[in-house]
Amino acid sequence: MSTRNTAKRADALRSIDAIVQAAAECLGHNPDASLSEIARAANVGRVTLYSHFASRAEVVDAAITRAIGEGNAALDSVDLAGDPALALARLVDASWHLVDQARALLVAAQRELPAGRIRELHDGPAARVETLIARGRAEGVFRTDLPIPWLINVLHSIMKGAADEVRVGNLTPDRAAAHITATVLAAFTPPGVAVPAPVWEE
Amino acid sequence: MSTRNTAKRADALRSIDAIVQAAAECLGHNPDASLSEIARAANVGRVTLYSHFASRAEVVDAAITRAIGEGNAALDSVDLAGDPALALARLVDASWHLVDQARALLVAAQRELPAGRIRELHDGPAARVETLIARGRAEGVFRTDLPIPWLINVLHSIMKGAADEVRVGNLTPDRAAAHITATVLAAFTPPGVAVPAPVWEE
Repeated sequence: MSTRNTAKRADALRSIDAIVQAAAECLGHNPDASLSEIARAANVGRVTLYSHFASRAEVVDAAITRAIGEGNAALDSVDLAGDPALALARLVDASWHLVDQARALLVAAQRELPAGRIRELHDGPAARVETLIARGRAEGVFRTDLPIPWLINVLHSIMKGAADEVRVGNLTPDRAAAHITATVLAAFTPPGVAVPAPVWEE
Repeated sequence: MSTRNTAKRADALRSIDAIVQAAAECLGHNPDASLSEIARAANVGRVTLYSHFASRAEVVDAAITRAIGEGNAALDSVDLAGDPALALARLVDASWHLVDQARALLVAAQRELPAGRIRELHDGPAARVETLIARGRAEGVFRTDLPIPWLINVLHSIMKGAADEVRVGNLTPDRAAAHITATVLAAFTPPGVAVPAPVWEE
């Protein structure tokens, strides 16, 4: 009996994993992908999908949670040592590639999940930015006349704005990271200090 | 007959006007306000409301169109002459008060209307910012290394981010305008030029 239950649990875990994987892929191509499409892509029946997830929102939540978790792991490999401005440029570059890849999935999350939940999911990435901003402030490179949560919000807002511009075709994804970096480095510069020249010119 | 038709048309216009007015007020307090509530506040029946508007989206569209039109008229009185940085500070201040007042209505619009429509409705306000940014660039006060549509997007994104921060209680509405101005003026500063000190310290 216990062996059979273990096997059943292993089956369930495999199904859930396949569904979350399929959801991230389907919603990543089309934020309106239906649960039927996701079940089909996961090679499970609708009944199986509904036995594990009570609603479309739960599926979207699981997919975005996985994407952010994987993204967060990828960002762990970004070198945040040295000049805080250069470190921020590297972090923006890596983060933008993740945002760009997950653009449609983020649209689905924004439609389906409460703003508070999306904010909560970004706590991991936000903590990394917070540490870097605090170090940049301590070293006199970033401004201290505005609170850290506001500066984090500015970075997120500009990145989200860039994703919108890419979606409507005003900006190409490959130019976005440089635009975001140039803007955020200027926005973070203390009053009275010169805005740094673009890092690729240094 | 023609007099009767004229009277009927005048009646219809009064109803539509009352509905749009009520929608702006109800949705301004609660983005989830129902059409029944809006009809009640407008003192018309649901049948009358549905005879003029085919869907909730149409009501929200009419309400936000009116709010932006009135806001745009209010912004016409902002003095945009003189130092472009000070002019931008005045424009941000006036715009923020409008955004803050219309915060719930904007949430309703973001839920109900396509992003393209919201962008289109902001064409009027965006044109005013565009003229000011172009003048600031010509006078060497604002950066020219990033395209004007990007700079407009940065201003809108930071303002939207501020509205989100106010909604979750991280920022008080009265401090928001100063935060936005300090951030945007820095973001718009040309590389190699010092970020201006907050305008209230000048």
